[in-house]
Amino acid sequence: METYASLRNLKFLLHEVLNFSQLQQYERFADYDDEAADMALDAARQIADTYLYPFYREMDKDKAYYAEGTVHTHPALKEGIKALADGGWIAAIDDYDAGGQQMPATLLHAGLFQFYAANANLAAYAFLTQAAANLIRTFGDEKLHEAFVPDMYSGAWQGTMALTEPQAGSSLSDITTSAELTDEGHYLIRGQKIYISGGDHTAVDNVVHLLLARIKGAPAGTRGISLFVVPKFRLEDGELVDNDVTTAGIFGKMGQKGYVAAHLMLGEQREDCHGYLVGSPHQGLKFMFQMMNEARIGTGLVAAGTASAAYYAALKYAKERPQGRHPSNKDVNQEQVLIIEHADVKRMLLFQKAVVEGSLALLLQCSKLSDIAHVAEGEEKENAHLLLELLTPIAKSYPSEMGTLAVSTGMQCLGGAGYTDDFPLEQYYRDIRVNAIYEGTTGIHGMDLLGRKVTMAKGKAVKLLMQEIQATIEMAAKHSQLADMATQLGQVTRQLHKVTLSLLELASKEKPEVFLADATLYLEYFGTVTIAWQWLKQAAISNAALEKDLSTDEYEFYQGKVFTCRYFFEYELPKTSGLAYRLSSEDRLTLEIEESFIN
Amino acid sequence: METYASLRNLKFLLHEVLNFSQLQQYERFADYDDEAADMALDAARQIADTYLYPFYREMDKDKAYYAEGTVHTHPALKEGIKALADGGWIAAIDDYDAGGQQMPATLLHAGLFQFYAANANLAAYAFLTQAAANLIRTFGDEKLHEAFVPDMYSGAWQGTMALTEPQAGSSLSDITTSAELTDEGHYLIRGQKIYISGGDHTAVDNVVHLLLARIKGAPAGTRGISLFVVPKFRLEDGELVDNDVTTAGIFGKMGQKGYVAAHLMLGEQREDCHGYLVGSPHQGLKFMFQMMNEARIGTGLVAAGTASAAYYAALKYAKERPQGRHPSNKDVNQEQVLIIEHADVKRMLLFQKAVVEGSLALLLQCSKLSDIAHVAEGEEKENAHLLLELLTPIAKSYPSEMGTLAVSTGMQCLGGAGYTDDFPLEQYYRDIRVNAIYEGTTGIHGMDLLGRKVTMAKGKAVKLLMQEIQATIEMAAKHSQLADMATQLGQVTRQLHKVTLSLLELASKEKPEVFLADATLYLEYFGTVTIAWQWLKQAAISNAALEKDLSTDEYEFYQGKVFTCRYFFEYELPKTSGLAYRLSSEDRLTLEIEESFIN
Repeated sequence: METYASLRNLKFLLHEVLNFSQLQQYERFADYDDEAADMALDAARQIADTYLYPFYREMDKDKAYYAEGTVHTHPALKEGIKALADGGWIAAIDDYDAGGQQMPATLLHAGLFQFYAANANLAAYAFLTQAAANLIRTFGDEKLHEAFVPDMYSGAWQGTMALTEPQAGSSLSDITTSAELTDEGHYLIRGQKIYISGGDHTAVDNVVHLLLARIKGAPAGTRGISLFVVPKFRLEDGELVDNDVTTAGIFGKMGQKGYVAAHLMLGEQREDCHGYLVGSPHQGLKFMFQMMNEARIGTGLVAAGTASAAYYAALKYAKERPQGRHPSNKDVNQEQVLIIEHADVKRMLLFQKAVVEGSLALLLQCSKLSDIAHVAEGEEKENAHLLLELLTPIAKSYPSEMGTLAVSTGMQCLGGAGYTDDFPLEQYYRDIRVNAIYEGTTGIHGMDLLGRKVTMAKGKAVKLLMQEIQATIEMAAKHSQLADMATQLGQVTRQLHKVTLSLLELASKEKPEVFLADATLYLEYFGTVTIAWQWLKQAAISNAALEKDLSTDEYEFYQGKVFTCRYFFEYELPKTSGLAYRLSSEDRLTLEIEESFIN
Repeated sequence: METYASLRNLKFLLHEVLNFSQLQQYERFADYDDEAADMALDAARQIADTYLYPFYREMDKDKAYYAEGTVHTHPALKEGIKALADGGWIAAIDDYDAGGQQMPATLLHAGLFQFYAANANLAAYAFLTQAAANLIRTFGDEKLHEAFVPDMYSGAWQGTMALTEPQAGSSLSDITTSAELTDEGHYLIRGQKIYISGGDHTAVDNVVHLLLARIKGAPAGTRGISLFVVPKFRLEDGELVDNDVTTAGIFGKMGQKGYVAAHLMLGEQREDCHGYLVGSPHQGLKFMFQMMNEARIGTGLVAAGTASAAYYAALKYAKERPQGRHPSNKDVNQEQVLIIEHADVKRMLLFQKAVVEGSLALLLQCSKLSDIAHVAEGEEKENAHLLLELLTPIAKSYPSEMGTLAVSTGMQCLGGAGYTDDFPLEQYYRDIRVNAIYEGTTGIHGMDLLGRKVTMAKGKAVKLLMQEIQATIEMAAKHSQLADMATQLGQVTRQLHKVTLSLLELASKEKPEVFLADATLYLEYFGTVTIAWQWLKQAAISNAALEKDLSTDEYEFYQGKVFTCRYFFEYELPKTSGLAYRLSSEDRLTLEIEESFIN
């Protein structure tokens, strides 16, 4: 049995579901055949087993702390980052001649899933650095690239994204951190940033903030925001000198206690915090959105990984713990049965498996779309891009929201033991909860999906998705055991389409508040249908595989897929009817109610 | 605005919904008019404000710890227990001549709700003592009563219920702690108990365990279990001497860190742990069930109270925090709006209010049924008892399960701030989670509801509930604004009835595993309909009140009720359609799947 993530499942998704080796047709990925992918996944597992998983609980108990202006982290962090860097994972997606491996995101994310499942609180540092480096690489000039990226790839320097400010939160248009151009060409930065993940710590020699600020005189709102590189130490005459970035403290968090969230003050001590503009002025938010879109997939992976680890912890317990007897055999002189034999425990485990593997399937589907959007051309590129844009809020939110419930269900499998720190469930429960807040709350993603993504390119993304779903329905309909589910998905998808059209009609008639009021429910609805699609696809492929001669392990693996799909269609997909009811209702109570009535 | 619980709402439920003063017709409660009730509620608030609420966060940070055989608790605990005892709350339900106040459970629980909302981790000690004392009082002889109850009522001694053992967990038939009768009349106890709440601590002088054990030679299973009083220190020749109850340690818990869960060893040091039999041998489980039924209502109150406190913390934040702008006015030169103005935040707050006040309404309804079952006679008594039995699994589980989601939603209202310990949401989130495990997991209560309660007395309890719901529907149908909701509840209730009948038919045809497989979903389904009933009742009463001349506060209070009812019928009740679908399905996947397929 697996401990935190299923390698078999990753290979199933990559090879059997996503046809990973198709990517070889693109020159950039020509070296990535199936064998190369498996070797990378196995290598990732080695690192995860050795440098990450053993420190998951420890990094929580001996949590990061702030003392004398510095953030102290667990000793395992430095070695862990180094192992990930040395394994080539931080630089993985960059070009060969820049020290990278031109690794497809599909494969990178399959590796990441393992790292996050093993210990997201350690791995997150390294992949935040990767995302920050990627921003410099894509939008910065050669000088910035040379000055910062190599030390980030080596794991010596930490990268961050510094967006949030105390008064602004989710509303980026309201950030006030300022940047003033000097005669020497750099900018002087002043302001405060909060909740900066990896914002400062002792496991690295320097921290490189990719920071949003407003150049003096810039237009108000999001169109006046620029992107800067702001290091903790800046290079002057070949030496690293203090860049007036002060860490005021770190936030005490319910979970992810090993993963620092810092409060930074820029230019507060000596008005001498240098920032280096990335690209042109006022383009900061556009640039940052590239990183944020990646980070959203990353957040989905963290959530799915955490839920995966919790699932295997619960499964292990359920297969070892005797408790109670079957309702039809209460003879107390007989031994108690293992709890996995109880139907309700099976249901709870299937829920977790459905969320974990359904989420992961969607996430890797998105990764493949991002690869194609990156290297393909013309319509293929555009379609992949549109579909990715549409699915990103779901790939971020479904694992975060449902993963939180899945971990809670894992805890429930253990009963009282799950609530104690004798088992890791309580940490998974605390850790996973933040993902529905990070990188845009679920509410924000609901607005993004319904308010922007559904309507972009005249609804073309939705149309593309419907085609994909239809193709899966047709594939599944050929299997007599899946035919009913294929029909069910067709019905639910048509209903979703109908609800979408009625909401868009509302958008054309009323102020935007009206059609967006229940955008969060719409996201849940859309997400559930999307995951059902992913499950039906997996079931169809598994059902075909079951027609062959299989080893016991393989037989059980594919049967697990088919049963979990059945679970999803019996227990999860029916939830859409209640959501459709509400989204079709004309009762505007959340718009009509006065604030004072909420008391 | 309230801080942790609404006194206005408690008075609304007591007087306007439950007609509390009706209880005066019973001699035992003759003194309890509306004024007496309000005085008691106000007095409870005083105690909660002074002795409980200020220490909620502190008791988590300076959590209970085990050192040198003793459990050290926060200094506030001793004073808090004393305040509750001195206020008469521990002895409240006992007879006047036994030092009690003959307080109706309806009023006691309304007081408890405030204590639990203010600081459940402190109040729980006192009310566990009350429940333990109540067991002795009801089933023990005069000698036991005199020896233990007075010191428990004064708060000097702690009471506990000691059921769980490492190998038994939820399966009480498998407990092995033994009791052997001695020539002196007491029993010698040997065994281990785990997760014993309040099991040992420094804020009291003694701990009195109400403990289940098996008398040597007793029949196997639940019919061989007896109830004992086992003190930490026993009285010998007027002195307290060590009774060989050793505390092996306490459990590290995710939450409720101020509320000790101990691991006890009985008779392990010197084989000299004395236990005193309560009532006749082998009746232990029957006796304990009285306490457990009370404790289940108590658990529901803890969950509802915690969710209430979280709700007011989220509401306060939502009314103070500016963030973002309305979709139809994105002008960044205008000030940001308070987050409570966003429809999605209103929805999140209404969800919390719906869960908190819907749960509380049901809990106090149960309390009144328990009062009537206690003092009435004949059919009235029997009906109240049956209805209470039916509703108890819901009153325990709905607040626990939905309260957990409500607190999570409260955290979401705060965004990143909610995940930090700058606000209490993260503690509420950790604390509330255990309630779905305590006193029977949700799965156990699902089996109890569908496997026992629905069928008891030939289904009479369900019939009584249907009559109650019908009466509410008729009352609401008279209000034109509520007529649609009345119709909706009628439809959903009929559907629930139909699903119930089909499950019972299944029970008659197949082995019990089949109809019980989704008992947890049935509980959720039944619970949602039950809370909808409670909301429609509150809305009908509020709607009537709105026809009068009202102060602004009163107007807003009643409008809040009507809108929250609408919320429930638009967002929560429609969830039953998905549950009905599954419960009517013939796919027996959780019975058919082999354990090895869950991988």
